[in-house]
Amino acid sequence: MKEMFSTGLKLEGGKLLALDQQLLPDKEIWLEARTPHEMAGFILDLKVRGAPLIGVAAALALAKYAEDKRGNLSMDDFNEAAHLLRAARPTAVNLMWAVDRMIKAAGRGVRPDAGAVIIEAESIFEEDVALCAAIAKNGAALVAADDHILTHCNAGGLATAGIGTALGIIIQAHRDGKKIHVFVDETRPLLQGGRLTTWELNREGVPHTLICDNMAASLMRKGRIQKIFVGADRIAINGDFANKVGTYSVAVNAAHHGVPFYPAAPYSTIDFNCPDGNHIPIEERPPFEVRGAMGSFGKVRWSPENTAVYNPAFDVTPVSLVTGLVLDKGFFTREELLKSSIRRLGK
Amino acid sequence: MKEMFSTGLKLEGGKLLALDQQLLPDKEIWLEARTPHEMAGFILDLKVRGAPLIGVAAALALAKYAEDKRGNLSMDDFNEAAHLLRAARPTAVNLMWAVDRMIKAAGRGVRPDAGAVIIEAESIFEEDVALCAAIAKNGAALVAADDHILTHCNAGGLATAGIGTALGIIIQAHRDGKKIHVFVDETRPLLQGGRLTTWELNREGVPHTLICDNMAASLMRKGRIQKIFVGADRIAINGDFANKVGTYSVAVNAAHHGVPFYPAAPYSTIDFNCPDGNHIPIEERPPFEVRGAMGSFGKVRWSPENTAVYNPAFDVTPVSLVTGLVLDKGFFTREELLKSSIRRLGK
Repeated sequence: MKEMFSTGLKLEGGKLLALDQQLLPDKEIWLEARTPHEMAGFILDLKVRGAPLIGVAAALALAKYAEDKRGNLSMDDFNEAAHLLRAARPTAVNLMWAVDRMIKAAGRGVRPDAGAVIIEAESIFEEDVALCAAIAKNGAALVAADDHILTHCNAGGLATAGIGTALGIIIQAHRDGKKIHVFVDETRPLLQGGRLTTWELNREGVPHTLICDNMAASLMRKGRIQKIFVGADRIAINGDFANKVGTYSVAVNAAHHGVPFYPAAPYSTIDFNCPDGNHIPIEERPPFEVRGAMGSFGKVRWSPENTAVYNPAFDVTPVSLVTGLVLDKGFFTREELLKSSIRRLGK
Repeated sequence: MKEMFSTGLKLEGGKLLALDQQLLPDKEIWLEARTPHEMAGFILDLKVRGAPLIGVAAALALAKYAEDKRGNLSMDDFNEAAHLLRAARPTAVNLMWAVDRMIKAAGRGVRPDAGAVIIEAESIFEEDVALCAAIAKNGAALVAADDHILTHCNAGGLATAGIGTALGIIIQAHRDGKKIHVFVDETRPLLQGGRLTTWELNREGVPHTLICDNMAASLMRKGRIQKIFVGADRIAINGDFANKVGTYSVAVNAAHHGVPFYPAAPYSTIDFNCPDGNHIPIEERPPFEVRGAMGSFGKVRWSPENTAVYNPAFDVTPVSLVTGLVLDKGFFTREELLKSSIRRLGK
């Protein structure tokens, strides 16, 4: 396989390496995934996270597996590894989609077609880089020279193989010379904003201020936020979308204060089997995440030991609160997205 | 001084004792405040917190000081102690008000009038208990038998000498036999909801679920919250009010979803020098609070070491988002509050 480099994943010197995102921002430790089983473990432990990135990581892990065991790997072993990777994050659409592509590329022989599998993994990586670049370009066109921009969670280079989606737009606008300032929602409970988005913005030299999620509303009331970009994990045909929990609260506040609110994602995030947001299932995560916090320091708990907790990983934002969607194919108003979906469904 | 008992403060066996709220919920350690200086330290370190409680705590500390040093305490020393207590939380209106009452009670002699000072402190304590009871009664009347109620921060027995304000209403409704369920906003950055409100509800046996602040919106969208009660640190003449940061975001979401939203506070929280919310100054707190968290485990940091932070302690909610105010004097609609304020100003 050829060498490939992204913010959180690389293939270098014949090794598949992943940046341990649980140790960021204090420690930058690259972990070697010697087998698909090890990569599945990294995904399970959130060391490798971000919807597009885990798809790419799974693909690279399967390709590396086929390459390492060339001529010696049974289709059963390959499929078992594919299954294991899928099971590491069962609700991640990109992961399913990437693994499906790899299984298809493996062919129908007794052994997986190593050459085809490697080419497919390289394509998945490169396609994601290109998608991010297109999203960043389309979104940066919306950013004014001195905008103050709010973002939630981490939809950056750490979550993708490329520049990122929502955060990619922000970084692109900065690289274009716009004098933007970013307000970063810390994004409880897993603190992807506080830990990862700050780390990325720091690396890129983009001026930014960290806030608790509940502070964004009063910044909007003071007129200190001009635009909001967030990622999207799944988009329904009508434009409703699921993203990291807390996105919906940001959207309600954006609408109340008249601040433009844009989800950003690849066009492939649209689920053509999903008519609207009510049909998006929401994964609930373990209570310990809300009872305290995790970071490079380990785990802490501040609430009573057995406190009952509600911990949905995502929430759904109705399209009525969306100003427009930034996709790799272009910028879509709500109406344009619906028209495009209907056209595609008609085919 | 006579014995007095509240959830977080007591005068017992001649000792003034405060429950260390920084160690809750895991450790219940009562600290002795032997001098006003020690009590000022507890307030500064947030071991003693909650707007009404720190006023009561300061009053008891000054009374105890006068009692202990009876006949030996100069007015200068008394005033210096009063000044020190005030400086521990310079924006807390109740603290200023309680200390002012104590200084007045001390009289104009060479030495403070210990008898008068003790009576005044006992009155301040008992008045707060009575205010809480009246607020709880007035608010509980609004609660239906099976309401799911959201609260933010801690406005309970730990923050007052009595049953609490917003949380007092909830506890009273539960004691009245209503089958309520409470959703508790964890309340970043200081986690008063996650650490203290859960501890109080647990003690009272009120069913509850802890959430991150950014999850309340999607619960409202699902129709899982029927009413919202929050505290108020300062109320302007027009009904705009300041409360713990995050309250405003809850209010915007409540209005968007049509969920009744009630601040609860003593009538004395109305600042008749303050025409509206734009005139309420907002204290900014140190960045380390947002960069990580504090609890009985100590301090942790998860964001990059020198990340710029915005950390306002409070935010302002305009009265337009308020369904009504629960005060000790009764339940006030927005219009009734304004009329009452105008009547009082006319006097």
